[in-house]
Formats: sequence, C-alpha cells, structure tokens
Amino acid sequence: MDRRSFIRTGTLGAGAAMLAAPAIAQGNITWRMVTTWPKNFPGLGVGAQRLADRITAASGGRLTVQVFSAGEMVPPLQSLDAVIDGTAEMSHGAAYYWQNKSAALSFFTGVPYGMTANELAGWVRFMGGQEIWDEVYDQFGVQGFLSGNTGTQAGGWFKTELTGVESLQGVRFRTPGLGGQVWEKLGATVTNMAAGEIFQALQSGTLDAAEFVGPYNDLALGFYQVCKNYYFPSFVEPGLATELVVDKAKYQALPADLQAIVRDCSQAEYDMVASDFMANDPRALQTLINDHGVNVLQFPESILEAGAVASLEVLTELRDSGDALTKKTAESFVEALNIMRTRTQDNDSAFVRARAQYFTL
Amino acid sequence: MDRRSFIRTGTLGAGAAMLAAPAIAQGNITWRMVTTWPKNFPGLGVGAQRLADRITAASGGRLTVQVFSAGEMVPPLQSLDAVIDGTAEMSHGAAYYWQNKSAALSFFTGVPYGMTANELAGWVRFMGGQEIWDEVYDQFGVQGFLSGNTGTQAGGWFKTELTGVESLQGVRFRTPGLGGQVWEKLGATVTNMAAGEIFQALQSGTLDAAEFVGPYNDLALGFYQVCKNYYFPSFVEPGLATELVVDKAKYQALPADLQAIVRDCSQAEYDMVASDFMANDPRALQTLINDHGVNVLQFPESILEAGAVASLEVLTELRDSGDALTKKTAESFVEALNIMRTRTQDNDSAFVRARAQYFTL
Repeated sequence: MDRRSFIRTGTLGAGAAMLAAPAIAQGNITWRMVTTWPKNFPGLGVGAQRLADRITAASGGRLTVQVFSAGEMVPPLQSLDAVIDGTAEMSHGAAYYWQNKSAALSFFTGVPYGMTANELAGWVRFMGGQEIWDEVYDQFGVQGFLSGNTGTQAGGWFKTELTGVESLQGVRFRTPGLGGQVWEKLGATVTNMAAGEIFQALQSGTLDAAEFVGPYNDLALGFYQVCKNYYFPSFVEPGLATELVVDKAKYQALPADLQAIVRDCSQAEYDMVASDFMANDPRALQTLINDHGVNVLQFPESILEAGAVASLEVLTELRDSGDALTKKTAESFVEALNIMRTRTQDNDSAFVRARAQYFTL
Repeated sequence: MDRRSFIRTGTLGAGAAMLAAPAIAQGNITWRMVTTWPKNFPGLGVGAQRLADRITAASGGRLTVQVFSAGEMVPPLQSLDAVIDGTAEMSHGAAYYWQNKSAALSFFTGVPYGMTANELAGWVRFMGGQEIWDEVYDQFGVQGFLSGNTGTQAGGWFKTELTGVESLQGVRFRTPGLGGQVWEKLGATVTNMAAGEIFQALQSGTLDAAEFVGPYNDLALGFYQVCKNYYFPSFVEPGLATELVVDKAKYQALPADLQAIVRDCSQAEYDMVASDFMANDPRALQTLINDHGVNVLQFPESILEAGAVASLEVLTELRDSGDALTKKTAESFVEALNIMRTRTQDNDSAFVRARAQYFTL
C-alpha cells in the first residue's frame, strides 16, 4: 500500500485512531495539513505547526489540525496537489512553488526587487491583492491565506569576495526560482538542489556559492564551515511570504466561526513568523560572526544595479509569459508597489537611516 | 444618573436589552470595549471596531464585544481606569497614555528613536517583552496585547520651512508625550491639545506647527489648509503600537478557546492596522501633494542629529525616573533594539535603499 492511499482510506495507525475517536464522537473535525517544510524547520516549519495548534486551540478542538511535514505524507512539492486531490485539506508552503500552475502565483510569495513583507500585506489586504489571488486559486478549487513572512532574506554565501559583476561570471550558485533567473542574467551558473544537499556540494567543490533563507536557517545548515563571505541583502527575495492553502469547498462548508478562526490565525501567524525572523536572524548572525568568523558584507553597488536591471527583465518576462490573469496580477502588484514604496523609502527607511547614523544606545 | 453608573448597573436601554437577551439565553457573554479613539477614526478607531467584530465572529457570538468610542461611555483617557474599576472589560488605546501609572508603559507603545513596528513585535513576542509587560500590568489586574501599529509616523506640519535646529527656537508646536519632551529640548515651545482643536489653533496663530499621526489621519483634519510644509519622518514616533487591555481575572476565567481567540485576533489586528496605514498613508499623501499643494520634506540633518541626542536624554531620564520594573523594561528594550537594529539597517533598509536607487517600474 502506498503512503498516500494508506492515508486517504483513513486506515490510520492505532495511536491516531485512538486520538481521532473522541474527536469524532464530539462532532469535531480533523483536518490534515501537509507542509513543504522539514519538521521543526526554524521559522517556517515551526510556523506551520504553530498555525495548526492555534486553529485547534481557538476552535476548542472543533477543528483539529494535524501537521505532516515535508515527505511525511507527500513529497514537499506535491503539497498543493494533495489538497487539490483531497489527500489533505490544508497545505502550508509558498505560492511560488506552484508557478508551473500559474505564473501569477509568484507575486503572492514575492518577486525580485519587489515588495517587502509590510508592502505585500498592504497590497493583499487593502489594495486588491487578495481578490486577485482568489481568482487565481479559484481555478484550482482552493483558497489562499498569507501565513508568514521571512522578511528580507540574506543574499548568499560565497567562497570568494565579490568586487563587482565580473566576480559572478561562471560562479556555480545554488539559488532557485525567479531569483535564480536574475543571477543567471548576471553571469552566474545557477543550479537548484534541496537544503540537505547544499553543504556537501559546497564542500566537494560542485558549488562556489549558495543562498537559502537567512542566518536563522543557514546557521543550522553549517555553510559557514565552507564559505566565509556572507552577503546582504537579498535583492531577489525582499520579503518572502508563506501561504496556507485550504480546499475551498470544504472551507466554505465550515461554520462561519471556524472560517473566521482559520483566517484570523493565519493573519496572526503572518506577524508571528516575521517577528521570529526579526528576533532570531540577528541573534544567529552574531553567532556566525563571533563564533565562526564569518565576514558579513554588502553586495557591491554594481551587482545591486545590474541586479535591478535583470530583475526588471525577469518581471517583464513573467508578466508577459502567462495568461491574462497573470498580467492583471503583475499590473496590480506594480501599481501597489509604486504607491507604497514612497512611504517605505521616504518615511520608514528614512527613520532607520537617521537612527543608524545618529543614535547609539 | 450619570453615564457610568447607568452602564454599570446594567440598566440598558430597550434596544440593548433586546440584543442582549438572546445572547444570555444561549450562555453567551457580552463584553464592553471602551476606546481612546473617535468613532471610525481612520486606522485606529476602525481597528478597534474590527478587532471587536473579529472576536465576536470567531467565537460565534459566545464572546460578543460591544465598542464604545472615545467619550461614549468614559472620556478617552479614562479607558484603562474603566477596565480597572469594572465599568468595561476591555480597553483599546495606547499604553503610553498611562505613563502616569507606570513609566514602563511607554516602551510598549514606542519611544523616541526607538523600535519600528516590526522590531517592537520581535521584542514583545520573542525577546521577553510580553513577559515584562505582563509584570507591569499585573500591578493593575489587567492583561495587555499588541493590537495595531501606525508604522513610522509623519514628523509634523510647519508653517515655515526648517533650515536647521535654529528654525525651531520658540516655535509653538502641538506634539504630546515623550516626543514632546524631545522637541522641547530642541527649542520648540511644546503644547498638547485634542485632535479637534488643532486646526483652529493653527489658523488663529496660537500654533506654528503640529503633528498628529500621518497622512491618512492628517488629511481628514485639514492641516494642509494652514501649513504647507509636511516633514518626514517622525524620529520620535517610529512605530506607535496600540494595545488591547483586558481585565485579567475575567480573561483568565474565560474558556481556553475564547482566551486563544482574544489573543489571536489581537495579533491579526497588529498586522491589519499596520497594513491599513501602509496602503492608505501614501494614497493620502498623494492627495495632499496633488490636490492641496503640500510640500513633502525631509527634516534637515541637524534636526535629526540633535533629535537623537535629545531622545537619548529623554530615554535615560525615563529609565531612571520610575521604579525597578521601569529600569528592567528599559534595559530589555535597549538590549533587544541593539540586536534587531542590525537586521533592520543592514538588511531590510539596505534593500529599500538599493531599490530606491536602481529599480524603477
């Protein structure tokens, strides 16, 4: 019996059956959440579990959510399919993993040189983003909610110091997705591989550089043992959002209070995951610097500038590559970004710049 | 009969009684939320109402929250007292309004040159802030939750352009709280007055300058008719948080699911209010510029620099002015800020700076 049909037929192990029985007796519902993250993965896997626990607690167990981490029920990149085909009721992951289903989905995770975490929330919640996202996911019978954000990620680990765009030529760099397309345009030889394979590839010389998330996650993966140059910021991942995806028909069949709980808990987690990274990324970075001798560096200006040119090309290609809905998504995203960036730049970041320059505690 | 005893004795009007009757019949609870905001006040009053509605919806009406805006049940600055004396079960406001009860409370709203909205959430949720806040509020038998954030506010409206600190000497400036203390140290003649009085004071010449919140709120108050110079950013209010305060004994007597709902909905609103300002502040600013000819300006460097010196003095005085718990709060705040600011500056703001410089959509 394969794992999927094992689960689908409900032939659960004795322990699970014992847990499930009283729940069913009280008219409770148990939903399965598949995730794209390893169990206890800092920030993201932890966030998926915490979201499940919140929903269970806020509903008093009337909607109990059981988490299956990457590979436990289905491979990580089949999480959305598992919801679509009914193997699970919920998926916790990132919308851009499904860009083969719709190119529009990238915008709801984040795009190169795109929105920060706060801007993305502004667009989704107050500038029509959620409504467009609903249109995209309606095609697949699912409903998406923002459920977390890493904030601006780290740019990457490099074996040698970068002096400019010329340093990137032929560099074998592990970096996936749209960001990977940007780095390719800058001259890097881009490859993707799973988290668990990166360290060895760096060590064996198959890779010259790699990026993953940021200090909180990267510390655990040990890249500092092979690469000493850690570059900031990731201009290709300025605010990567996670999503909760729910089977829409089943969601709409829930009583209104449980629907509200799923929505409210997801939004609470958007703040919680971002706060986790905000507090723990810099603590991990201190460890990397103080205990492991890592050089923390800013990308040279020529890379930031060429990266912006390449990102605009990638975004334009993306906008024109998909269907009409992708174009509509891209246009809404750009319009919203152009409004909000004025606030972020001239107010939020203007304060942070002044504080960095004049205020020492 | 005065309004307070009228409410307290439960002698509600016919309409309220009709609403309350079925709720009681089903064993439901109705809680009164007093707020410090005018009804439908953009961002903040709207956020208080939305939080009440979220709790009511997520609990399926088992915990129904009725909102009383500023002055409806008690004057705005008696909201916390109303919870302490049992007139209401909940208060929605800002912790620094109660700095006369404990100087420590200012830190949970925000202090001059202090934390951004994201940093404050990081401190409260992952660096011990909530635990210290609980210690402070335990003295009054209440429980606080973050419930919103304006983000970095606008610096203020000035009748004349500022060339440096010398322009501030004797300027009659409406700006309250710790920020007001900072501006006083810079040479301004600081005064406080309620929102509704500011416009006329500017017009009559009683005031030379005023600050309130930011474009979203300020547009409605019409300051642009009298002052044309709108300065950014507010280095004294870099991320002003609102709070939900609940009677702690009554909160702990709630079933666990309702406790979770109050907590989760407050956290969802922290994101929601911030998103509202993120989307609507820059839209209002566009209106101010395009329709009302407002000059949007950055503070001169000498004011930002002197403001930092004055803010450090105010913070030091605050730390040493209160009890041991205030000192403990200040030290935890400073330690957390010094860790998180490295991320905000060298990663988040570094990205925003590069985007402003190189990326035009």
